[in-house]
This record gives sequence, C-alpha cells and structure tokens, in this order.
Amino acid sequence: MRLTLYTDYSLRVLIYLGLRGNELSTIQSISNAYGISRNHLMKVVQELAREGYVESVRGQGGGLRLRRPAAEIRLGEVVKKMEPDLALVECFRADNRCVITPACQLPAILSRALTAFIDELDRHTLAELLSVSTASEIADLLDIKQIEP
Amino acid sequence: MRLTLYTDYSLRVLIYLGLRGNELSTIQSISNAYGISRNHLMKVVQELAREGYVESVRGQGGGLRLRRPAAEIRLGEVVKKMEPDLALVECFRADNRCVITPACQLPAILSRALTAFIDELDRHTLAELLSVSTASEIADLLDIKQIEP
Repeated sequence: MRLTLYTDYSLRVLIYLGLRGNELSTIQSISNAYGISRNHLMKVVQELAREGYVESVRGQGGGLRLRRPAAEIRLGEVVKKMEPDLALVECFRADNRCVITPACQLPAILSRALTAFIDELDRHTLAELLSVSTASEIADLLDIKQIEP
Repeated sequence: MRLTLYTDYSLRVLIYLGLRGNELSTIQSISNAYGISRNHLMKVVQELAREGYVESVRGQGGGLRLRRPAAEIRLGEVVKKMEPDLALVECFRADNRCVITPACQLPAILSRALTAFIDELDRHTLAELLSVSTASEIADLLDIKQIEP
C-alpha cells in the first residue's frame, strides 16, 4: 500500500510554499530544492491550484504561494483530493469482476479502515508540519529562506 | 492508494477456503470460481502457506484448506503480511532521496494513520466475512458447496 508519487510531491510542495509565507516561489526553485523533475511538479501544482490550495501569480516576478492559511489545510483532505483514487481493492472500481461482490462484507470493512486512515491525517494540518521547532530546520535542508507568517 | 492485487487475491482465497471448512480445495477450483489466473494464485497460495494461514495436502486427492480457524485470522494481520510493503511515501523506503527527511514530521503522522487503518481491519476476522447470513450467498456466487464448520 502506497500513496502515489503525485500525492507525495503535493505534500512536499505545500511544505515548501508554507515555509515561504506570502513570498512567491517558482516551480524551478521547488524542483531544485527537492531534486524533483519540473515536469512532474507542473502537473502537481496545476492540481493543487485547481483544488484551491495554491495561487499562481503570472508574469515577470510571478510564482506560487499558498492560497489558504497552512492552519486550514488538513492533511487527510489533501491526500483524499490528490490521490487519483482510493480504490483499495478491485470491487471499489468500475471494472470490478469479483463474483462475490453482491454478498461480500469486505468492502464495508475496508471503507471503514480507509476512513480511519484519512481521519487520523485530518487531525493534523500543514501548519503543524511547519511548527517553530522544525520549520527553520526544513528551510535549511531546502536551502531557502523561511518567511515568518 | 490501493492494496496490491496480491493482497486482494489473498483475501479471496481465504474466503473461499473458509467456506469449505475442512474440505480440500484445488487452486484450479479457486481459479475457476473467481476467474483469476492459476499462476497468480500459485504465488498467493505459497505465501499464505508460508505465513501459516493455509495448509497444503499433497498427492492424489490433495489440496488446500485453512490451517487456522477463521475466527483467529485477523484481516489487518493478513493485509500487513501480504502487502509487499506499507511504504506510503518515499521516505519510508530504503532508496529515499527526500532532502527534508531529517526534520520532517510527516512520516510520523503517516505512520499513525497507517496504524489506524490496520487496527480497524484487525477488529474483524475472516469468520466475520463468513457469517451465517452471507456465507451461503457467497458460496452460491462461487458455485461451491459450503461446508459448515
């Protein structure tokens, strides 16, 4: 069981932008800091913008920043929105061919487990990942200047 | 986020064998019932045997059956043992290259969410999937004769 790289990168982008406060950052700078391909990040950022997490300012000197306060970005919500699907097993999907589906109790149990997973993540916000004690350390590792909110 | 097909098939095999009580079943019969390739099932069954869930009786008239009572087979435990890894994001893996790992709080939060997921599954056993009300219905869908425990 893995999250997609897509979700993984989304969380990294949010951490990066969270550290930068209101300052604008470019995809190139995020790409350099994490050593992630620019192409991958483009798609991630587009989706983060579509979901209302990130704001993109165009033109010369433009760039990205968070659209919402970090304290309002719940991690479970990010995972739920960025994962292409949360179809744990075949019977969660449209192309399901498992013959016992009409009687099987497993999907209901797996759904409850998935809810427990997301609920636990939703107890935490992006702000918590950027708490005073760790933010400056992460900024150092990314070789960026942290901007106090 | 998905479980592997491997884990999905493991659960199906356990349901099948659970319905058959002490009777022996062949991989071919499970393959026919679910419409799953025999090759896939071979590997799944080998691993289920290695983990002590399934007993394989060799020779003419041989076959498979559960090695442990269905009431003692916890679903979270099965998922934990059958998933090749539960490495939700890159920093859970040996080839991790995420630069913020030394300071990042995300792995701890994701670990807690994973524990919540497995714990919820562990509240349920294989026996529960074969409760009186559903077992006969599943047996019908699989076109097999259910053996009362």
